[in-house]
This record gives sequence, C-alpha cells and structure tokens, in this order.
Amino acid sequence: MAMHRFTPIQYFSTIGAHAPVLKIEPGDSVETTTVDAAGRDKSGEQVALGGNPMTGPFFIVGAEVGDTLAVHLDAITPNRAYGWGRAQIAPNVVDPDFVPQLPWPQVGVRPLAEWNVDMSTGQASLTSPATTRPIVLPIEPMLGCFGVAPAGNEAISTATSAQHGGNMDYRRFVAGTTAYFPVLTPGALFFLGDGHALQGDGEMAGTGVEISCDVRFTVDLRKGWTINWPRGENEEYIWTVGNARPLDQATQHATTEMIRWLMADYDMDAITANTLLGQVVEYDLGNMFDPAYTMVCKVAKRRLR
Amino acid sequence: MAMHRFTPIQYFSTIGAHAPVLKIEPGDSVETTTVDAAGRDKSGEQVALGGNPMTGPFFIVGAEVGDTLAVHLDAITPNRAYGWGRAQIAPNVVDPDFVPQLPWPQVGVRPLAEWNVDMSTGQASLTSPATTRPIVLPIEPMLGCFGVAPAGNEAISTATSAQHGGNMDYRRFVAGTTAYFPVLTPGALFFLGDGHALQGDGEMAGTGVEISCDVRFTVDLRKGWTINWPRGENEEYIWTVGNARPLDQATQHATTEMIRWLMADYDMDAITANTLLGQVVEYDLGNMFDPAYTMVCKVAKRRLR
Amino acid sequence: MAMHRFTPIQYFSTIGAHAPVLKIEPGDSVETTTVDAAGRDKSGEQVALGGNPMTGPFFIVGAEVGDTLAVHLDAITPNRAYGWGRAQIAPNVVDPDFVPQLPWPQVGVRPLAEWNVDMSTGQASLTSPATTRPIVLPIEPMLGCFGVAPAGNEAISTATSAQHGGNMDYRRFVAGTTAYFPVLTPGALFFLGDGHALQGDGEMAGTGVEISCDVRFTVDLRKGWTINWPRGENEEYIWTVGNARPLDQATQHATTEMIRWLMADYDMDAITANTLLGQVVEYDLGNMFDPAYTMVCKVAKRRLR
Amino acid sequence: MAMHRFTPIQYFSTIGAHAPVLKIEPGDSVETTTVDAAGRDKSGEQVALGGNPMTGPFFIVGAEVGDTLAVHLDAITPNRAYGWGRAQIAPNVVDPDFVPQLPWPQVGVRPLAEWNVDMSTGQASLTSPATTRPIVLPIEPMLGCFGVAPAGNEAISTATSAQHGGNMDYRRFVAGTTAYFPVLTPGALFFLGDGHALQGDGEMAGTGVEISCDVRFTVDLRKGWTINWPRGENEEYIWTVGNARPLDQATQHATTEMIRWLMADYDMDAITANTLLGQVVEYDLGNMFDPAYTMVCKVAKRRLR
Repeated sequence: MAMHRFTPIQYFSTIGAHAPVLKIEPGDSVETTTVDAAGRDKSGEQVALGGNPMTGPFFIVGAEVGDTLAVHLDAITPNRAYGWGRAQIAPNVVDPDFVPQLPWPQVGVRPLAEWNVDMSTGQASLTSPATTRPIVLPIEPMLGCFGVAPAGNEAISTATSAQHGGNMDYRRFVAGTTAYFPVLTPGALFFLGDGHALQGDGEMAGTGVEISCDVRFTVDLRKGWTINWPRGENEEYIWTVGNARPLDQATQHATTEMIRWLMADYDMDAITANTLLGQVVEYDLGNMFDPAYTMVCKVAKRRLR
Repeated sequence: MAMHRFTPIQYFSTIGAHAPVLKIEPGDSVETTTVDAAGRDKSGEQVALGGNPMTGPFFIVGAEVGDTLAVHLDAITPNRAYGWGRAQIAPNVVDPDFVPQLPWPQVGVRPLAEWNVDMSTGQASLTSPATTRPIVLPIEPMLGCFGVAPAGNEAISTATSAQHGGNMDYRRFVAGTTAYFPVLTPGALFFLGDGHALQGDGEMAGTGVEISCDVRFTVDLRKGWTINWPRGENEEYIWTVGNARPLDQATQHATTEMIRWLMADYDMDAITANTLLGQVVEYDLGNMFDPAYTMVCKVAKRRLR
Repeated sequence: MAMHRFTPIQYFSTIGAHAPVLKIEPGDSVETTTVDAAGRDKSGEQVALGGNPMTGPFFIVGAEVGDTLAVHLDAITPNRAYGWGRAQIAPNVVDPDFVPQLPWPQVGVRPLAEWNVDMSTGQASLTSPATTRPIVLPIEPMLGCFGVAPAGNEAISTATSAQHGGNMDYRRFVAGTTAYFPVLTPGALFFLGDGHALQGDGEMAGTGVEISCDVRFTVDLRKGWTINWPRGENEEYIWTVGNARPLDQATQHATTEMIRWLMADYDMDAITANTLLGQVVEYDLGNMFDPAYTMVCKVAKRRLR
Repeated sequence: MAMHRFTPIQYFSTIGAHAPVLKIEPGDSVETTTVDAAGRDKSGEQVALGGNPMTGPFFIVGAEVGDTLAVHLDAITPNRAYGWGRAQIAPNVVDPDFVPQLPWPQVGVRPLAEWNVDMSTGQASLTSPATTRPIVLPIEPMLGCFGVAPAGNEAISTATSAQHGGNMDYRRFVAGTTAYFPVLTPGALFFLGDGHALQGDGEMAGTGVEISCDVRFTVDLRKGWTINWPRGENEEYIWTVGNARPLDQATQHATTEMIRWLMADYDMDAITANTLLGQVVEYDLGNMFDPAYTMVCKVAKRRLR
C-alpha cells in the first residue's frame, strides 16, 4: 500500500510492451503527471511528440494474463490554466451533404479553441475564437487515453482504442471511478495520459479541453477474474466499454461484455440477464471521432441489488 | 383550446395520408386510447392487427407543409395491469459470434416476458418466465411510435421511423415532454400508439413492457418554423432525433439537426454552435432494434442561457 | 403468352398497392416505355414529377402472397439521345475530411452532367461540363428502379429499396437477365422505371446516365416458391440482392438469401452451402447512394453444376 | 537487379519496425517461402505461432517516408498438397437472426475444411467434411497478408489491416499483379505471408484455402510518389484498397484514394475525375471478416487511355 511519486522523463505514443518505468504492488498508489494531447506539460513546454503521449508504463507485480487490473482514479487535477481544443465539429459526425455548408479551415489546419481553466472556480472559459455568445462551462477532469499493453506484442497507437483500453475518450472516467482492464501481458503495463478538463459525449469536436494534469491512482489486481473489454464502475453504475467502428459494433461489444458480467457475477442465467437488461440498460456515446469509436453499456447498481 | 375525447374504432399499421378521424385546432387537447403493439386493448381484446397499430390520424387545422407540429404529451397512463415483452436480447445487439452462445427459441417463436403493471405502486413485476432473481422495476410510461404523415404520399410501416417520426422507441418521450414533427402534408395527420410501461435505452430486447394506454395530448402549430427531423424538449433539455441505420448515420442526422437549431434559434454562428456542442452535447441511444435505429442529440437548457 | 403494348398516362412516385393499369397472365410480354428519373419522356417533355416515376403497376393474374414473380428483361432501349447525371461523386462515398477538398455547388444545386447517347454506335459522350479529357463510354442500358408492391399496405418511395425491390440501381439488371421478386400482395403489382444508359458500380455519383427507355419484359410466376429478397440470374450467374444501410447489412441480407437458395434448390446441406460459398462467392456493389444501399451476392452457375 | 534466395528462420505475428532479415535494392527480386496462417510449412510442420506469421521484413535500400514501394508478385506457388479452411460462413456476414439457424461448433472449436491442392491439375478438392455434393475448384493462389511497417512505431497484428497493408485478404493479389504500399518508415520493411490456394470474395468463411507457398517478388521504389492507402494494378485495372470497418468506411477510403490518383496522374481535374468515376468505377469486396474489412475501388485501364 505504498504511495509512489513518479515524474516522467519520456513518453510513449504507442501502448505496447515497452520497458516499465516503475514496478508497483497491488494496493499501491501513484502520484504522477500527464502531458496534454500535443505533448505539452504544466509550463506549456513541449516535452513529447503529439498524439496523446503516455506516462508509464507501470509494471504491476503479480499481474498475469487472465487477471484483471483495477485502476481507481483518485484524483485528476489540471495543473495549468491553459486548455485547448477544436472549434469545429468533426466532419464524420454530421450528414455528409451538410459538410460543405460548414466553415472548414485549409487542409492541415485545425481551427483552435483556447480555454482558460480556473480550478478555483471550477470553470473553463473560451478565450478564442470570438463567438456570438460567451462560453463558460464547469470542468469535469477526465482521462481520455489509458490502458494496458495489448496481447501478442502489438504496439497500438494512442490515437485509437481496443480491448486493452487506450484512447476511449469516455467522459465519465473521472476521479472517483474505477476502471478495469484485462491483463494481456505479464505485469499488465499500465499507461495513462490525454487529460481533458471537460468533454462532451462522443468527443464530437475531436478533442475535449486538452490539458496537462496531476493524477493520482491506486491499482489492485483481481486474480483469475478474466474480462474481454475494459469495464468501469462508480457509486451509481457498473459499465462495460466497447471500442470499434462503427457505433453498432462498439455497442455489440459492450452489450456482450455486460451480459457476461451479469451472468458471471450477479447470479443471473441468460434469460434473467437478457430480460433485465432489455428494460434497464443505459448507453453512453464515449467517442465518435477516434479510429475506434467507443460505446458504453451501463446498469445502475440499484437494479442489481 | 377545446378538449376532445376520441375513442378509436380502427387502427392503422402504416403512417400515411389516411382519412383523418378528427379535425382539431392548434391549442386543442385530445384524450384517447392506444392499443398495445400487438393490437390488444385495455381488456386484452385483440382489436387490431399487430405491429404497432396507430390511433388517429388527427388533422390539425391550418397545418401546412413547412410548419412544425408541437405535440405536448400531457398524460400517458397504462390502462390495464398486463404488460408483455421479450425475454431475449435481440441478436443484432451482441457480437455475432456470441449469438450461438445464447438460448434461442425455435424459428418464429418469440420468448415472451410477462409483467404485472401496478399503477398504484408504480411498479412492473416480471411474472414469467422464471428467473434466477426477481425483477421489479419502476414504470416510466412512454410512447414508442408516434408522428405525422410523411411527404410524397408514402405510407410507412409503423415498424420503422424516419423524418416523420414513427417507431422511434425513445424512452424519454414521456408525459411532460413536447415532441416536434415537421408538417409534411396538409393537416399534418398525427398518429400515436405503441405505449410502453417502461423500456431500457435502445429497446435492446426489441420491446419495452408493451401495454395499452390512456393518452392525453395537446397540439400546437409553429407556423413557418421548418425542421428536418423530429425534435423534443422537457424542462432540462432540448433534443433532436435521427432515425436511420446504422447508429453512425442516426447520430449524424441528429447532430446536424441540432447544429441547425442552435444556429437558427440561439444566436449562434457556426463556430459558436460547433465549439459549444463539442463540449456539452449528450446522446441517448433511442433504439437499436427497429429497421431504422434512433439516436438522440441533447443539449441541457442551462447551457443555452 | 400474349404481347401487350402499354402506353402509360400516369406515373407513381411510390411503389404500393395502387390501382393496376393492366392485367396480364404469366407468360405474357409487355412493351412499354419509362420516363427518366426526373419525369421526362422521349421527347424531353416533363410528364411526371421527378424522383423515379414508375410505369405500372401491372397485375399478374394468379399471383398470391408466397409466390415469386419472375420478370425477364427482354429489351431496354433508350428512346432519345439526351442523357443526364451528376458531375459529382456523392459526399457519402468519400472520406468525411476529404469532402471539403472537393468542389461543391451551392445548397440545392446539383452539378449537371449532360450526355449524348448514340444508339447506333452504342456510345455515350459527355457534352457538359467541360472536362480535362473527353469522356466517351459504351452504353449498357439497365433499369434502376423496379419491383412489386410491398407487404402491409406500405407505399414506399421510389427513392429507396427494400425486400420488394425498388430503387436498387444495380447495373447488371440489363436486357437478358431475369429478376425475381417476392409476391407480397395479390397480383404482385409490378412497377418499372428509372432507366440508365450506363452506370458505374455503386451509383457513386447518385445517378447513372439517366434516360427514358422503351422496355419489353415477360413475366412468369413461380407458384409456392417463396423468397425473401429480390434475386436475379443471367447466363453466367445466379444472384441475390440485399437492400439496406449500411453496406454490411445489405451484404448480410444478400448472403443469407443465397444460403437459403443453395440449400433449398441445389441439394446442399448447410455445411456444403457454407463451405462452397466461402470459396466461390462474388459480390457486386449495387448502390451506395440511395436511402437503402444495395449489395449483390453472386455464384457462378459453373460452380453449381 | 539481383535475385535473392531467402529462407526464413523466424516469423512475426505483428507488422512493425522489426530488425530486417535482408537488405535489398530497388529492382531486386526475392525468392522465399511463406508458412500458412497457422504457422505450418511445406512439410506440415508447425514452425511459427499461428495468426498469419510473416516472412521478412525486407529492408529496401533508399526507401524513405513519402516514397512508395512497388512489389511485383512474380510467382505464388503452393508448395504442398494440403490446404485447410473453415467449413462455416462467419456469423457476421449473415443476418443476425439467421445465425441461430445455422449449425455452430462448440465455443472455441472451428469446423475444419480440408482440401487436396493439386498443382498439376490446378484444382483444389474438398476432402473433409462430408458434403452433399463434391466440391472441386480451380486454384488461384494469392497472398492474404502483406505490407510494410506502419508509421509511428506501431506494431500491428497480422490479423488486421490498415494504411500499411496487412491482412487485406483480397483475392486479386495474385501473381502478375503489382501492389503499392506507402513507405512509412525508413527502408519500408516489407513483410509477406498468409497464402491462399483460392478464396472467394470477402473471405466470408474467415479463411481461404490456407496453404504454405513459394513466393517470388520484385521490388521497386517510386521516389516522392506519396500514397495514402495500398494500391495495385494488373493488365486490365488500376485499384485502390481501403481497410476499415464498416464496409462503408473501407469504400470511402478506397474511393478517396482513387480520386486522388486520377487527379494526380491522369490529367483530370476534380470534375473530370468525379464524372468519369461515377460511370465507370467498379468495386470488389476484399474481406468482410478481419478486424478491418477491405473494399477495393477499380478503374479499367481502357477507360483511362
């Protein structure tokens, strides 16, 4: 139950079986920092190449293939005032024949939205571009990209997500939640990064309010509890995460994983799980921008008692 | 502002330009009844062929193509204790290779779930099949299928949905909400039916708890306010509805319609609408079972003040 | 085995249970004409509203629900020299972020391509707009939209397609092929129209070279031979047609229908049909533009002997 | 213009920046061997772990990011008589509600189809399981999985495909064709494997007739010719390859790449490319089984003269 303080000096743009930066035990906590999606740290300095550079990987002692890694997000705190994003909905989330009716920047240019993130008031205020109405929103800091090394020696870009987690951009992975990842390689190898001060459902602009963060998390190990897709829980809900394109397939993955969970751990046969799920299930659109989209299947804990 | 009481004697299994059963004025209210999705009424008698038989159509005096019909759902009250549904998730909502692992009935047979719906306690209790845990859930009565006659003299099956509304199976169309439909034919021709005592997100079992209802609604007309897809609002949210397959396209329709709404009625230019939406938008999965799926794009009213 | 000559005086923009224009017997042939997709006839006169106006419906004596209507396309002959289409790929068939890089007309304007169709040489020559290279292509006249009245009293727009056929825009429905449609209403009620002098796979521009035609067809009835989706054959192939969005689902429909066909009529059990199909199946992309896309599943007849 | 003979002693199950096994010059040819998808060689011995183990990588001297690698497939020759595949269409290629009607093996078991591949007659004969009709088919040897190391230090599973190529399972990559891959890392690092004696469109069974092969190929370098997706050509066609899910997106990638090609190398402005493509384009369904599906966009060379 040690508390580690870890200051990253390098970052990874793929999630894979890279050399671990720290070995930790189940029950241990880590305080560390993440840079923003473009590789800029708390002082705004570019310390890594862009594309969701990751802090880690952390080797969890005793983690073996077939186990599940539990990561409790204790605290996610933006550590600077400057956040940025896109001032443009992504072209794939509107009707194709509506795309030409929207303003588009020149090829290769991203229209930048700049935000002032004030931790004392808990608010983010858009400072640029000029808008016809002021935009001031409450912050809800979250991790966009985190997960474990994938199976089969793959090294997967932090632009995307799969069964190992990755760039899920699901806005309910906030402090206070626990995320579960299948252990796919010895030691699990946990990575994290891509903090957002806030984000809408679906990350429809292709970004949240991107920002560097101080993060504290605590790991635990569920020996022999095998899962197929990332899962999560908070006080109100349990959930399963499907990462794939299109949304239909992401939904199929998440729903299948939830049925498996209900049948394995909640005393339900298939008929019970199916009948209950049909009338109580909820879904969140995690992201509809990244190479793999994310859909989340949720069941309220009060429906499971 | 008249209150009409209308008792249906016939029902339609398509939404089209059928002869109206009643002419009403903007501001008028109607008290009527709907049969369940299989055509059974409050006494359990089969009075119509199955497949979401519709009450109506109601001709709204003054409604012209290019206007919008507002339908406020004043009350949706199950009028019997017996509800039914499916005791099986639909095969299209799980992974294809998981389908063979679930129990399936013989071809043509639907595994029936039967429910006791108790209006005094506000609870629905599963009475059949036998489950490994009791299933008792709070009711939230909603309309699964309602809308107006489509354009171009189409008569569209009540199994599906499109720009005219129809079988959207969105569980937040409950009493207290207002639905908006584009007027696509003179008089709008409003139909309603397919009440559910409750339903999960996505109608993943292919049904909610299907039941006959007493319904009261009030219509209004927004002259010259032209919309492309159904919309809705309640005290907390405004929303737009996209009906299509796959979920990606349904989401595109709903998002496009929301951008149009924000730009037309909320003093936003494209940059403002896009930037705001990216960080505050929410989505609900209406249904992922019907021939057209339904995704709903929502913005909280507190974000629009 | 009569030969009928039928001159249409009205046209339908939905395929539904409209009053038949002619009753014909199985074995009979019909010579008639079709207007182009915009409702213009051989003299260029607008005689119907646009949107694939249909000639028909023809009532086939003896056709009952559960039978199959065979329509042999004897001849499809453009009857004027002027063809038109779009000079623009549809926005839904390219990458969303490539859409802003293409030239788009103003909202509501379609960039018109005009063609001279010369039946004596069998060639179509683009006459407008100006291009950097001349475009001269061999004609292969086909029917874009044809089929039978759908079930359940639906009247379905000729913009789209479903199990009844409709706007499939499959370029191999040329003279010499036989199309099969499920009889879904008494008399089948056969409609036809939307001739194209030629068209690429997928109708990616949203049109072929649209033109009015003289058409001769011969009907036959397969009593008690029940099919779920349109089918076709020519000398080389049998095929099944799936109409839906997205392409994945259209492919699923077509493949399922082909397995059913092989098992029912070609002495194959499921293992045989599956194993053979896996190694010999071919697919064509019918259209990827209409509200329902079309995928075609083909098996060469030489693989079935 | 050297001819190299290379005998692999190890195989990779990811395509990434692994240490090259041989450095070759543009213009050089290589004769080598590939094991089958399960890692078995010409004598049937398991020499690598399954999942499309790759021969290579070959470092092409002078290949830099932004260039294109041309790989001419000179010869693909099965080097044993035993081929295998699945005797079952994949569950994702049929209608979800049809899945329960097909015979399925127990979880984890794949129903094996075994083939005798006779190079002297050019025929493959199914030897197991028992079928209601004999299945004898002409062989058309092809490479299922080949490509170059991806960008950004990713190591991508040979189960899937992307812009770097990979497991495209496109049955027209046979001897006599040239494949083009974007150079994404210095030296390109070319891998190959997963030979099929034959395969249907779409690899709908999840396999072709899997077999080990002798392969001869010749590389060339197109300095400064930058492409985004794999391309190919044979005597009749040029084509572009889109790898993604769903088929819609794979088609969008391939179509976009073809428009770019026509505009860059065939003297066409956007209007010309779009108008021509709309009426002459053809598509092939490469695969609809792997994590990324493959659609191929083709234009006949006779349309480009």
